[in-house]
Amino acid sequence: MKAAGVIVEYNPFHNGHAYHLEQTKKITNADVVIAAMSGSFLQRGEPAIVSKWARTKMALAGGADVVVEIPYAFSTQHAKMFARGAISILDALQVKEICFGSESGNITPFYHALQERTTRMEALNQALQQKVETGVSYPKALSDAYKNIGIDNLDLSKPNNILGFHYIEQIQEQGSNIQAHTVERLNAQYHDTTFASSSIASATSIRKHLQKSPIEDASEVMPLATKMELQSYQQTYGLLHMWENYFHLLKYKLLTMSAEQLRGIYEAEEGLENRLLYAIEQATSFENFMQAIKTKRYTWTRLQRLCLHTLTHATKDEMNLADTAPYIRLLGMSKTGQAYISSIKKNIPIPLLSHSKHSKHSHPLLDLDIRANAVYYAILPEPFRSQALKQEYVQHPIRSNI
Amino acid sequence: MKAAGVIVEYNPFHNGHAYHLEQTKKITNADVVIAAMSGSFLQRGEPAIVSKWARTKMALAGGADVVVEIPYAFSTQHAKMFARGAISILDALQVKEICFGSESGNITPFYHALQERTTRMEALNQALQQKVETGVSYPKALSDAYKNIGIDNLDLSKPNNILGFHYIEQIQEQGSNIQAHTVERLNAQYHDTTFASSSIASATSIRKHLQKSPIEDASEVMPLATKMELQSYQQTYGLLHMWENYFHLLKYKLLTMSAEQLRGIYEAEEGLENRLLYAIEQATSFENFMQAIKTKRYTWTRLQRLCLHTLTHATKDEMNLADTAPYIRLLGMSKTGQAYISSIKKNIPIPLLSHSKHSKHSHPLLDLDIRANAVYYAILPEPFRSQALKQEYVQHPIRSNI
Repeated sequence: MKAAGVIVEYNPFHNGHAYHLEQTKKITNADVVIAAMSGSFLQRGEPAIVSKWARTKMALAGGADVVVEIPYAFSTQHAKMFARGAISILDALQVKEICFGSESGNITPFYHALQERTTRMEALNQALQQKVETGVSYPKALSDAYKNIGIDNLDLSKPNNILGFHYIEQIQEQGSNIQAHTVERLNAQYHDTTFASSSIASATSIRKHLQKSPIEDASEVMPLATKMELQSYQQTYGLLHMWENYFHLLKYKLLTMSAEQLRGIYEAEEGLENRLLYAIEQATSFENFMQAIKTKRYTWTRLQRLCLHTLTHATKDEMNLADTAPYIRLLGMSKTGQAYISSIKKNIPIPLLSHSKHSKHSHPLLDLDIRANAVYYAILPEPFRSQALKQEYVQHPIRSNI
Repeated sequence: MKAAGVIVEYNPFHNGHAYHLEQTKKITNADVVIAAMSGSFLQRGEPAIVSKWARTKMALAGGADVVVEIPYAFSTQHAKMFARGAISILDALQVKEICFGSESGNITPFYHALQERTTRMEALNQALQQKVETGVSYPKALSDAYKNIGIDNLDLSKPNNILGFHYIEQIQEQGSNIQAHTVERLNAQYHDTTFASSSIASATSIRKHLQKSPIEDASEVMPLATKMELQSYQQTYGLLHMWENYFHLLKYKLLTMSAEQLRGIYEAEEGLENRLLYAIEQATSFENFMQAIKTKRYTWTRLQRLCLHTLTHATKDEMNLADTAPYIRLLGMSKTGQAYISSIKKNIPIPLLSHSKHSKHSHPLLDLDIRANAVYYAILPEPFRSQALKQEYVQHPIRSNI
């Protein structure tokens, strides 16, 4: 059996994701598609709007055969570390090809840019250094530096392009044989906040919509399974997870921390800790807290990740524990997915976990995942909060009948 | 001017407290009565139902001339440390006599018990050791041990008697000349949960009442000023402060702490940390969490204090910083109180603070007070949470016109 991989967040799963899975099967001619998915917290440093279990169900209904979790220590990181974790998981699961969405749908500029970077590292670093010194954010400096040294046929200011670039970089760095493909994203920009067409919309625009409007009104841009999962989640728990729901915990947390303790948190650097501790006192919402700490030098995403690591108390020591994923948490499988996992089980070089507690396997990064999940569920009303916490320990992978 | 002192919590100020102040003036013939009052958190390890500012107003209206705050590091402690902080403050404020409530209203047994303890220390310690080994709580063992060696004309199982005993002990230990008096408590047991008479009720029974019933219905057992302060607080903020309001924060806090971090918290001893971390996962309320961690060995109060120190992150290092109060925070004064404070100002041996921030004085215990206050207000809705936090820093003592 041949497996292809995709690296996803499904926040939530929408029609564009269904198209991506369809194209992945078509281009790679794979029997199974494995989705390496962020868990409770995502790459931009925010909570997923519904639990990883609800999103796993959406993914299985939408065509994924296996869903595995990218550990917190990778899923909540800048593109390079995010890619490093995801690629190491897919490689361990014997994936032969991956397919990611990009603006152009052409893979050549990615390989080209990577090769150029290798041969022109010195010029690139020099250009990067110059840009950083002008005080702009690191992603902006990097994208400009690439342009400066003539790597200009790949727009690295686009999030999907940056991620794709690092996927390929990580395949090479980790000595993997995975082959990379890309499909053109349909009609939607990554960060669009309004629906671009009647059936395709970005996850960002869908979330934006869900903040104010009923799920029903976004029916056309998402599969029925997504709509039903979202509605059921909202009805049961009375909420979708957004940063504002966590602000009271973040405020409590920061008000009980010293600058010294905050300095131990991952991504708390260069005096940022004093900025946070000062701004939190009079901040009345997450939005106005972020506005208060924002500067030209740090992107919203960078600061949002720092807030997240503060909320989960993810320390520098913990986050730097592993270069690649030290285990794989299995979240769900289709029938085909189950057959595939059975066939490769003995050859997976790292532990494959079907639940997080009472397992023979233990790892400090798994403790961090458990803690992050506890924080994720901390805003649910009782008895759901306690139930979700327990489920997180004992839940076996979801097995779909497809 | 002659000053008398009382040591109080006023949670809330009721008719029994008014009687106590009246009797104190009468017995001591003092010009001013100074109340050393717990701040946001109290001796039994729980939040005060309304802020220290609201309680200061009640106290001034009820006859106190000066209200000062017992710092968190003393106000949330077992009787001996509580007494140590309070007595050191009153002594610094040149108080000549104190008066406390007790069951009998007779001071002789207190002085007698203290003297007996001094002369029969060895026998007492032996009896105490034996009682502790039977597995009962420390306060119970202590009260039994005193009985065992024949000190039986003072019932040390009564909270007011225990406190009174330690006030006198601390006066002696600190080499103070303060003279102690006691008045008999009227018609109400310390922990009564129902109103014992039509006009006198314990603070415990009043709080119990307020959990379920309107403030109006408790009008007869409290002065009008208390009723108005309570009603105004509840109308403005939508709540009175009870442990249950803080449970979501305590749960979040414990779920993001390691056993090692919890061991650094004051009063986390003898494996209690594992007990807490295990029980919190499935606890759905503060009440059922406490039931889950309760044992014969630890009193409810002892465990409640541990929960409080966890919530405020009060560490062993911090709580052991000072033997006596290193500063005095002034909360309120009557006209007479202002005149008295002016007259002794130059002779107060420790800093007298009129607000906590931008003051020339700084002390780690003051930082702890500020943090504890931030936690206290963390459950208020915005914008009140941020406003209360700011007020806490800049609020000058309340000056009444009486």
